[in-house]
Amino acid sequence: MSEYDLVGIGNAMVDVLATVDDAFLEEQTLDKGAMTLVDTDRASEIYAKMPPAQEVSGGSCGNTMAGFASLGGKGVFIGKVRDDQLGNVFRHDMQSIGVDFFTPATTEGPQTGSCLVLITPDAQRTMCTNLGAASNLTPKDIDKDIIQAAKVVYMEGYLFDPPDAQDAFVEAADLSHDAGRKVSITLSDPFCVDRHRHAFQMLVADHTDILFGNEEEIKSLYQVDDFDAALQHVRGHCEIACLTRSSKGSVILSGDEVHIIDPLPLDPVVDTTGAGDQFAAGFLYGYTQGMDLRKCGEIATLTATEVISHVGARPEANLKELVERELG
Amino acid sequence: MSEYDLVGIGNAMVDVLATVDDAFLEEQTLDKGAMTLVDTDRASEIYAKMPPAQEVSGGSCGNTMAGFASLGGKGVFIGKVRDDQLGNVFRHDMQSIGVDFFTPATTEGPQTGSCLVLITPDAQRTMCTNLGAASNLTPKDIDKDIIQAAKVVYMEGYLFDPPDAQDAFVEAADLSHDAGRKVSITLSDPFCVDRHRHAFQMLVADHTDILFGNEEEIKSLYQVDDFDAALQHVRGHCEIACLTRSSKGSVILSGDEVHIIDPLPLDPVVDTTGAGDQFAAGFLYGYTQGMDLRKCGEIATLTATEVISHVGARPEANLKELVERELG
Repeated sequence: MSEYDLVGIGNAMVDVLATVDDAFLEEQTLDKGAMTLVDTDRASEIYAKMPPAQEVSGGSCGNTMAGFASLGGKGVFIGKVRDDQLGNVFRHDMQSIGVDFFTPATTEGPQTGSCLVLITPDAQRTMCTNLGAASNLTPKDIDKDIIQAAKVVYMEGYLFDPPDAQDAFVEAADLSHDAGRKVSITLSDPFCVDRHRHAFQMLVADHTDILFGNEEEIKSLYQVDDFDAALQHVRGHCEIACLTRSSKGSVILSGDEVHIIDPLPLDPVVDTTGAGDQFAAGFLYGYTQGMDLRKCGEIATLTATEVISHVGARPEANLKELVERELG
Repeated sequence: MSEYDLVGIGNAMVDVLATVDDAFLEEQTLDKGAMTLVDTDRASEIYAKMPPAQEVSGGSCGNTMAGFASLGGKGVFIGKVRDDQLGNVFRHDMQSIGVDFFTPATTEGPQTGSCLVLITPDAQRTMCTNLGAASNLTPKDIDKDIIQAAKVVYMEGYLFDPPDAQDAFVEAADLSHDAGRKVSITLSDPFCVDRHRHAFQMLVADHTDILFGNEEEIKSLYQVDDFDAALQHVRGHCEIACLTRSSKGSVILSGDEVHIIDPLPLDPVVDTTGAGDQFAAGFLYGYTQGMDLRKCGEIATLTATEVISHVGARPEANLKELVERELG
């Protein structure tokens, strides 16, 4: 088994993007800007009413793996699709960007997971996620050889929504640690944290070396009202914490080391989707290359800035060239 | 000798404020927004051409002591005035707000120091400082009993401009430490740091327990281009560092403790003069009352916000009541 820099475990999702007006959201009683979990029937109902759409491979962790590969890192993805057309789209897109993806597709049960992304004229994105086949990820899909061949395992918090995937999460963390590897997670979403707060707290305290979270997520995790209070809670709970603050930049903590990384100027911000995913990609790339934490934070800031300069959650630029040009 | 919370050592200055147009600055070849040191002749020349003005006690450390007293702290000021009218104004203003001021006035030499503050219609302040009698502060003025009766000695970086005052600075630090007290300084101004960088670096490394500096000052001190790099330099060089970042809030470091204090919302910001002075006042008030660093930072943020909500470098609100109302 060849050596990997990073193995990502996440919900394998295909985004289905369409532009709609506000009236459509009202008819479908959807909260603008929110991510809602929906079942297959509800997803079909909304999809039937949607205008012509565009399909793009997505998923939070999938987006991170795309950025990681664009930086030149060697990655492999674990996630569950079905043996259907969208499953083929997802697999093709992963492999075409150089990310290995061996997890077998399911041959029965729900279709490949999809996320209906409804873009209104004010550039807001309202998302309806049908986890579909992604829900069927179980500890059996966590390939020991792959986990132990990677320097770092990275897992998205959204995996906590389907119950079997939570077990897969812990299984992967244990396997990784047994091999002396590092475990990183992202909290993904403040509502996801809210749904599974206790499980997340245990995971961060007991299984996580490198934590990613934005301000709202970390405040939700510890149920505090302000950033500094959350920061005090997270210290000492994991080896490295990367706390992102949108236009306020980010804070990286490790033991008694702290780095405050300012944002890069960008005007206009076109679409913030994927900012956290690409921050993690940039940071983990630097980390797996043995760079110091500050340099990791600088790369992360650069890759997150690239993704918010255009529509879509995966990079458009060649990130390896971008980093070489901007950071030398 | 009664016990003090804080003894402040600074340039005793009276501000002379007038509104002028841009043409006036051009005629006098003054850089808008900058603080320039001028001698008595030059100050007289500018003053002669200025429109009717308003005299207000000032000085960076004097402003801090005013805020400290408004918070309910017991303070004493050391600084040099002459036995002239502006000297009497300065002394009166200190004593009337409850700050002791025993340093004898000089009976010869230059007049009481003054700062011509030229306010242009765009609300910018262009300052011409004539240190005057303040320059005559010497180690002899550093009253051992007063220094050793105060929990903390606080000194402004502007004291580094007149040469004898530098010696007074070190003398005060040594006396304070001999009595087991704490020494705090503020860097005051990036240009002041630039003029005396080596002396400041030695002072921070060898004599300072609590350092105050804004982003530009701390970057100037270590000759680095960005905030995070400056932050790495300052760590370990003093017990507590309070780094202020204007609209980005502040960062407080102590050993492996770090607090990131967000700014309070304020719209409009009327006049930023005195923000650093009142931040120090609030922080040192909390510190001398034995509060934890986060609470100190919250008080500092509140008092700094108060002073930028109106024109002038000293508080208008009763800060003790403000803190009780806002922070409980």
